This record gives sequence, structure tokens and C-alpha cells, in this order.
Amino acid sequence: MIKIKKFFEYNWQIRDEWFKWCKQLAPEALTEKRVGGVESILFTLFHIVDVEYSWIRGIQKKEDIVFHFSDYDTLEKVKTLSDELRKELIHFLKTDIENIKDHFIKVPWDKDTYSIDEILHHIVIHEIHHIGQLSVWSRELHLAPVQANFIGRQFNLIP
Amino acid sequence: MIKIKKFFEYNWQIRDEWFKWCKQLAPEALTEKRVGGVESILFTLFHIVDVEYSWIRGIQKKEDIVFHFSDYDTLEKVKTLSDELRKELIHFLKTDIENIKDHFIKVPWDKDTYSIDEILHHIVIHEIHHIGQLSVWSRELHLAPVQANFIGRQFNLIP
Repeated sequence: MIKIKKFFEYNWQIRDEWFKWCKQLAPEALTEKRVGGVESILFTLFHIVDVEYSWIRGIQKKEDIVFHFSDYDTLEKVKTLSDELRKELIHFLKTDIENIKDHFIKVPWDKDTYSIDEILHHIVIHEIHHIGQLSVWSRELHLAPVQANFIGRQFNLIP
Repeated sequence: MIKIKKFFEYNWQIRDEWFKWCKQLAPEALTEKRVGGVESILFTLFHIVDVEYSWIRGIQKKEDIVFHFSDYDTLEKVKTLSDELRKELIHFLKTDIENIKDHFIKVPWDKDTYSIDEILHHIVIHEIHHIGQLSVWSRELHLAPVQANFIGRQFNLIP
């Protein structure tokens, strides 16, 4: 069975590599407004973390928690947030999603309802898309981006 | 069961919207060398088509067909190539991939072997990543990019 979990593990691995990559930049470069995408390099990482968590809470019918970038405006704070929320995500992704994937979900920030299956695809794609944007900004800063290939990676966070 | 096919359908739908989007640009803008990603907007679309097809042929143990951008250097030619190859891809993706997904494959352009499951994830992610790059270039050209959300779309190419 094709497993959506592998996409999450891929995204987390790549995201952690971008967090490491960010260490070479000054704080001003991380939050500098850029063309395209969402605001800045650091805001992109914050946004990815925030969106993933909100949807997964939505799937679980838990109340949405709103994070404000003003509270997470350093690399360390965004990385810590990502690490903390990931624990809850791993816990959820270990459960048997197969049984619930055709359930429909309504979240407070969207007028439509979506199947859990659809939402999981959406979350995965959302992060990969934004990471592609980081890769261009990276070259604009004359830096090599994180290598994004899926093949050749090992994943073992979610059994 | 989470279906990898939905990711392919998503990618094709988005790609076709980028082909339409490209019509507003002059040929020189389509092939102008840009920072990051692969060369140009048109080369990115050609590259996505080429890589997807090569891997799917590899999975089927068919001989690799090498395409040269010099033969596909206009929007119309790349779109036609994409349409033509898609027929073969749909045919393959309609087959029961589940039965073969743990088979290992060796392709001529890579020294390692990979499972079919791994290759399918790789193809899907490869395109989404490059589309993210196009979205930044689009804003650099002061144009709105194609909207990339997965949720809210309908897919029906692959039963």
C-alpha cells in the first residue's frame, strides 16, 4: 500500500535540513521580505509548520490553535515549534488512518468540507511547493539549496 | 487506500494550467535563463515531462528514450510532448501497481537500485518541487502564479 506517511517523513527530513541550512544566514536575511512565496525564508518555514499542524488538528476534530509569527520570529523558535508539534503529528500518523480517510471534515478557516484523504494530500503538497520556493531564494543568495530528491533517503520516524 | 494516482492527476492538472499560464509570455521570456531551478520556465516544464516519463519507463523495464530540449524549444512542442507521453502514463497507472511496488528497479542514469514505490514518490515530489520554483519566477515577472492548492480540485483521468 502506498503510504502517505512516507511523504510526511520526507517533508520533515527536508525541513530539518533547511533549518540547518538557515544557520549560515544572519537573522535579517532570514526575515527579509522576498519576491514570491510567503514573505521570507523564516516565515515560509513557520507557515509550513503552522498549516500542517492546523489541518492535522482539524482532522482530529480538535480546536484550532492559532500561532502568530511575532511569537516565533527566530530560527530557534520556529525549529522548537516544529519539533514540539511533530510529536503530536507522529502520534496521529501512527493511528490507522485507513479507517477514517473517507470521513469529511470542516475546519474553521475554510467554508468547504474535505475528506481526510484529500486533506492529507493537501498538507504534503503544500510543504513541497513552498520548499521549491526556498530553493530559488537560496540561489538568489548565491547558496546551494538543500538537495530535495526523495530517492536514496531513509525514513523511520513513523513505524 | 491512499492512492499515488491522485498525486499524478494533481500534477498533470497543475502542469496544464502552467502551460496555459505560459501563453501570456513572449517566447524569449519562456526560455530566458533564471536564477535557481533548472534554466528557464519552459525548460522546467520540459524537464518535468522528461523525468516523469523516463522513470515510468524505467519501472516498466522499457528502454529509456532521451529527449533533447533543442527539439522541444517552444511552448507548443513541450505541451504536445506532455500530452503524448501522458497517454502511456495513464495506461501504466491504471494497472495494478500494488502488486509490483516492492520490486527493485535499476535505471541507466543512476548507479543505485530503488523500489517502484520509492520511485513513484520521487516522481510526484520532483514535479511539485519544480512547480514551486515556477511560482517564484512568476512573481518576479509581476504575474500571479497558478494556484497550487490540492483541496477543492476534481480528478478523473485515472479510474
